[in-house]
Amino acid sequence: MNTLIDGLQCGHFDRESFAELKSAGVGGVVVTCGFWEGALESLDSLGRWRDLIRENSDVVRVALTPADIVAATEEGKVAAILGFQNANLFEGRIRLVEMFAELGVRVVQLTYNNQNELAGSCYEAEDSGLARFGKEVILEMNRVGMLVDCSHVGNRSTLDAIEASEKPIAVTHANADSLFPHKRNKSDDVLKALGETGGVIGCAAYRNITGDYYCKTIETWCEMVAKTVEIAGIDSVAIGTDRSHNFTAPDYAWMRMGRWTRGIDYGAASAARPGKAPPPDWFLTLQDLDKIPNGLRTVGFSEEEVAKITHQNWLRLYGETFRNSDS
Amino acid sequence: MNTLIDGLQCGHFDRESFAELKSAGVGGVVVTCGFWEGALESLDSLGRWRDLIRENSDVVRVALTPADIVAATEEGKVAAILGFQNANLFEGRIRLVEMFAELGVRVVQLTYNNQNELAGSCYEAEDSGLARFGKEVILEMNRVGMLVDCSHVGNRSTLDAIEASEKPIAVTHANADSLFPHKRNKSDDVLKALGETGGVIGCAAYRNITGDYYCKTIETWCEMVAKTVEIAGIDSVAIGTDRSHNFTAPDYAWMRMGRWTRGIDYGAASAARPGKAPPPDWFLTLQDLDKIPNGLRTVGFSEEEVAKITHQNWLRLYGETFRNSDS
Repeated sequence: MNTLIDGLQCGHFDRESFAELKSAGVGGVVVTCGFWEGALESLDSLGRWRDLIRENSDVVRVALTPADIVAATEEGKVAAILGFQNANLFEGRIRLVEMFAELGVRVVQLTYNNQNELAGSCYEAEDSGLARFGKEVILEMNRVGMLVDCSHVGNRSTLDAIEASEKPIAVTHANADSLFPHKRNKSDDVLKALGETGGVIGCAAYRNITGDYYCKTIETWCEMVAKTVEIAGIDSVAIGTDRSHNFTAPDYAWMRMGRWTRGIDYGAASAARPGKAPPPDWFLTLQDLDKIPNGLRTVGFSEEEVAKITHQNWLRLYGETFRNSDS
Repeated sequence: MNTLIDGLQCGHFDRESFAELKSAGVGGVVVTCGFWEGALESLDSLGRWRDLIRENSDVVRVALTPADIVAATEEGKVAAILGFQNANLFEGRIRLVEMFAELGVRVVQLTYNNQNELAGSCYEAEDSGLARFGKEVILEMNRVGMLVDCSHVGNRSTLDAIEASEKPIAVTHANADSLFPHKRNKSDDVLKALGETGGVIGCAAYRNITGDYYCKTIETWCEMVAKTVEIAGIDSVAIGTDRSHNFTAPDYAWMRMGRWTRGIDYGAASAARPGKAPPPDWFLTLQDLDKIPNGLRTVGFSEEEVAKITHQNWLRLYGETFRNSDS
């Protein structure tokens, strides 16, 4: 199979999004169903996603297992894996984890930009490490078949999560802090621990956390991927672009400020460059994702390695963590 | 005025509770309207409290200001100050703080037994210190006139809260860790910082965090109060018994496990002594609260000091922090 799995995208998907992803050779994508939303709001979001997928069932289907992604690719469709970038959907209730898994959710980030009952965030002055409820939720996610995501989680909490989890975990969309220093990026310790435990990091193509150099050409970006492989290992590096669809100013306001402050928070951006970051120079449209396999070959990866980075590492991790992944 | 203010009680109050409190000379009490409840559940709880108070308006009234407590005492009623032992009622929304203040809530603890978006808890392995949302909420509570409570909050987060708050804060129900070592009790650093900033600690009469010695007689308990005064100063020590009304096993289960675990958590208790802690030997019924003024005199406090500990320190702090406290 020759395809590309994107470990994390967000924004308002529409029929055109799926058509473009398909055209670019993307077989599967983890979509962001929520940032700050509580349980009821998350059900609303899942309802909207079900409608969107039902109305466009000729080009997109939900993936509950790796086999669904393979099937989607064979059917010429995009597989949408339902994910949340925060654990607010559980609303502090351990018993809701199982129910959201039954409703198709497969990837949940322990916390987003702020500390919560589970863990510390990369943006807090101090990362608490994994908290009591976080340990409970990870074991429950292991049991019910959800992938633990630590992309916006602090390094300390991420290391704790790797240790606490009985299954490998993911950093679906971040880069190596040693390659481009940013609070959102992960320490080499985290990347090595991911590598040693079967976890996967999805290399991001979001300028604020990638830096201008690695955004210049597909080759420089693939150079970053190659350096990440040197840290985490070839079985633990994949793609998680963090690409957003149809995002507007109110979306950025929601994503960054939610309802937690009346002030301004810049998220991964900064006061100097507060708005929408320009996409990488090589990634102006979704179609450009089709440059990735050749880009990886150009920086020296073998066919086998290209397959791991573009889809096999995600498929292997999903197989080890998703509910009903044997069926 | 000669009265007693209890900085924190919890449980299921009924008409008899208020009659007993009145009979024991209690003029005001902060009641616990919630432990884990979210916004809607907290409105439900406030609704039940309004009904209870309305149905018993000959013996109890709501206090929104210190003047209301004085008026209640003069009318021969108990003043109920509405409080929550967790910030879950805000559900991560900065704008709900003002609304709950308008609905009469005057005391809110930053977090209960688990870390949350605001702060670290005394029971977490690591206390994160005050988190980003915690800073926002404290300033908003300052603005809208709510007292910040850090009783179950970790020492580090409590010190951060004292520094971040523009108004003095409270530890409504805890003891000095140097007198009885327990995770729920506060370090001397915290008590001294409270003393230096006009904050107040309410000495608890809950056996699990007081210890058998200080539970033996009213004199030994008042001895503990005197030692606490040596640490925090005479203007910063008051009473917060943590007395529970009509508590049964399901109430303890809710208080300790809420919905965050399927396992067992003992809260301030322990595996060795998991159930309801016996009350202090001197405090078998609410009526025994009337022993406190004389007990304080016995361990050497002057009339002026007794007045501060029994009610003036709370009245002063409420005056400095409660909404509309000038009216």
